[in-house]
Amino acid sequence: MKINALIAQQATQPLAAGQVELRDLQPDDVKIAILYCGVCHSDLHMARNEWGVSRYPLVPGHEIVGRVEATGANVTNVKVGDVVGVGVMVDSCGHCHFCQQQEEQYCEAGFTPTYNGTDKYTGGTTFGGYAQHVIVDRNFVVSVPQNLALGAVAPLLCAGVTVWSPLRHYNVKPGDKVGIVGLGGLGHMAVKLASALGAEVTLFTTSPEKGEDARRLGARQVVVSRDAQQMAACQASLDIILDCVAAPHDLDPYLATLKTNGQLVLVGIPDQPHPSPNVTPMVFRRLSISGTSIGSIRETQEMLDFCGQHNITADVEMITGDEIETAFARMLKSDVKYRFVIDMQKTRW
Amino acid sequence: MKINALIAQQATQPLAAGQVELRDLQPDDVKIAILYCGVCHSDLHMARNEWGVSRYPLVPGHEIVGRVEATGANVTNVKVGDVVGVGVMVDSCGHCHFCQQQEEQYCEAGFTPTYNGTDKYTGGTTFGGYAQHVIVDRNFVVSVPQNLALGAVAPLLCAGVTVWSPLRHYNVKPGDKVGIVGLGGLGHMAVKLASALGAEVTLFTTSPEKGEDARRLGARQVVVSRDAQQMAACQASLDIILDCVAAPHDLDPYLATLKTNGQLVLVGIPDQPHPSPNVTPMVFRRLSISGTSIGSIRETQEMLDFCGQHNITADVEMITGDEIETAFARMLKSDVKYRFVIDMQKTRW
Repeated sequence: MKINALIAQQATQPLAAGQVELRDLQPDDVKIAILYCGVCHSDLHMARNEWGVSRYPLVPGHEIVGRVEATGANVTNVKVGDVVGVGVMVDSCGHCHFCQQQEEQYCEAGFTPTYNGTDKYTGGTTFGGYAQHVIVDRNFVVSVPQNLALGAVAPLLCAGVTVWSPLRHYNVKPGDKVGIVGLGGLGHMAVKLASALGAEVTLFTTSPEKGEDARRLGARQVVVSRDAQQMAACQASLDIILDCVAAPHDLDPYLATLKTNGQLVLVGIPDQPHPSPNVTPMVFRRLSISGTSIGSIRETQEMLDFCGQHNITADVEMITGDEIETAFARMLKSDVKYRFVIDMQKTRW
Repeated sequence: MKINALIAQQATQPLAAGQVELRDLQPDDVKIAILYCGVCHSDLHMARNEWGVSRYPLVPGHEIVGRVEATGANVTNVKVGDVVGVGVMVDSCGHCHFCQQQEEQYCEAGFTPTYNGTDKYTGGTTFGGYAQHVIVDRNFVVSVPQNLALGAVAPLLCAGVTVWSPLRHYNVKPGDKVGIVGLGGLGHMAVKLASALGAEVTLFTTSPEKGEDARRLGARQVVVSRDAQQMAACQASLDIILDCVAAPHDLDPYLATLKTNGQLVLVGIPDQPHPSPNVTPMVFRRLSISGTSIGSIRETQEMLDFCGQHNITADVEMITGDEIETAFARMLKSDVKYRFVIDMQKTRW
């Protein structure tokens, strides 16, 4: 079926409204009328082919909230009219060790990305959430709590679960001292979620003017990372740090703020390696540096349920589809608090 | 009391026999007549003041095996005549979180090193195992299994426990795929201990000629790390790697050999940072890089008991005290299989 979408026809052209073809509804499929789609930085990278893997026409978007419009014969987990979410994955092999233990994000065959992936039925390209509809395998659809503002839920599907997964994987508990580096799309969700988990959150930022906002979002303490004195004052004080900054930066000052056995978890991928970590404190205080990638479907549902209970959503700026290029331009200047979300119902096609 | 020892009087002088003063036996003390002392690379660094922290006169040595010669009134864990060991630590604060949970190597106040530390009774310098005697707090003395060749036990007290601790901390089990980087003093113990724990060991080396030896020591597989084809053949195959090489080297090829959730554990401290790790595989496969430092007294005893049960000792070359400078020179060329040990009873004073 043909659907309306915001399409990149090639790397050098702006996104523009047009039509793409989705697969027909299969027995395991859920057809979703999209209400909102968050604007993730990777959407911009992919639209512009900055990672060299883009296939055109390309429809970005993997922070999708919508309403179920139709279901295939085998679908029992959701029904027509339900409000649901779709994140970064729409399929995986289902057989490997990781799929079997519900960690599809580490599928050994590689999961199918929501856009720019390969549709398992048609062999064509998957199209993302900058569109009026999406068709997704039932196992990759999550339920959205009814009490939340739906537009502000969309960014939870990528930014939210990307920070939720390490918080859970590394077992962050009430009273734990958690550092968050950077107050952007991911960082602001990390502050909210970690503090809702009962952790004492320290927000590291290069921008002193973000301090007030960080405290409003739940941070107990704000440290300006360029201020050596402030950094020295929190030496060896943190159990874990989620580093949400993708730009290359020196990791050593953050390692210094970790207690013995501390974890520095990187969720951003720099285009150049971060300056090398100094091994000495890692050895003498048994520190670790690790990475994690998004989160599983199980974790996504768990995070949404948690957000429903704690009334947590993203801080968003709503736009319509024809404002996407302006939003991209502002995003490049980090001029967004803290995520753009496209309102599909207000978008003209 | 005055004792005979091999002493560095300053950074630029060779070690020479002489005398230093030990504290008098205290109620908690054990006086040990040293039989053997292993020669650790850090002994050379410290004798030459290569880390800039050496205090002279300096007596190196923290891989000590000896016989109890006297005990203070409070000592009940060992008795005169027992064969015992002393490693890198001779004291710690005893009060902090880490001391309380028997991880003195991470003591928040810093443990007291066996040599070049501060004697808690006299305020003077601690002197190490290149000597006829040592006096040590009872809690830092471990028992040596009677069935082992004592000279070959000495290197277990530092090299052995330094690789044992991460193997246990990261819970290496039978069947686990363990990589060991470098077949030196630490690496050869890591191969022996990991394979005795039931792991399938892959030894990475730059020297193809070490392959036969590695297999004899227990490695299932030997990979020449400069051979890109061999490295490619073991991609994503290992659960954990102990990297025993202190010289700066590229960590990325080793990260590539780890399975998802794999751990790269560094036990050597390079004088320059290793070339930066590429974050991409760390994120997409949730890899970690961590450091660990020696091991606790509890782990040291556990390792010695395990070695007793499995009849494991180090491969050593025995020397006498007057051969120490020749040994240092050969060690600098990695010309030792795999640890020099000083026979104190054959040393002329």
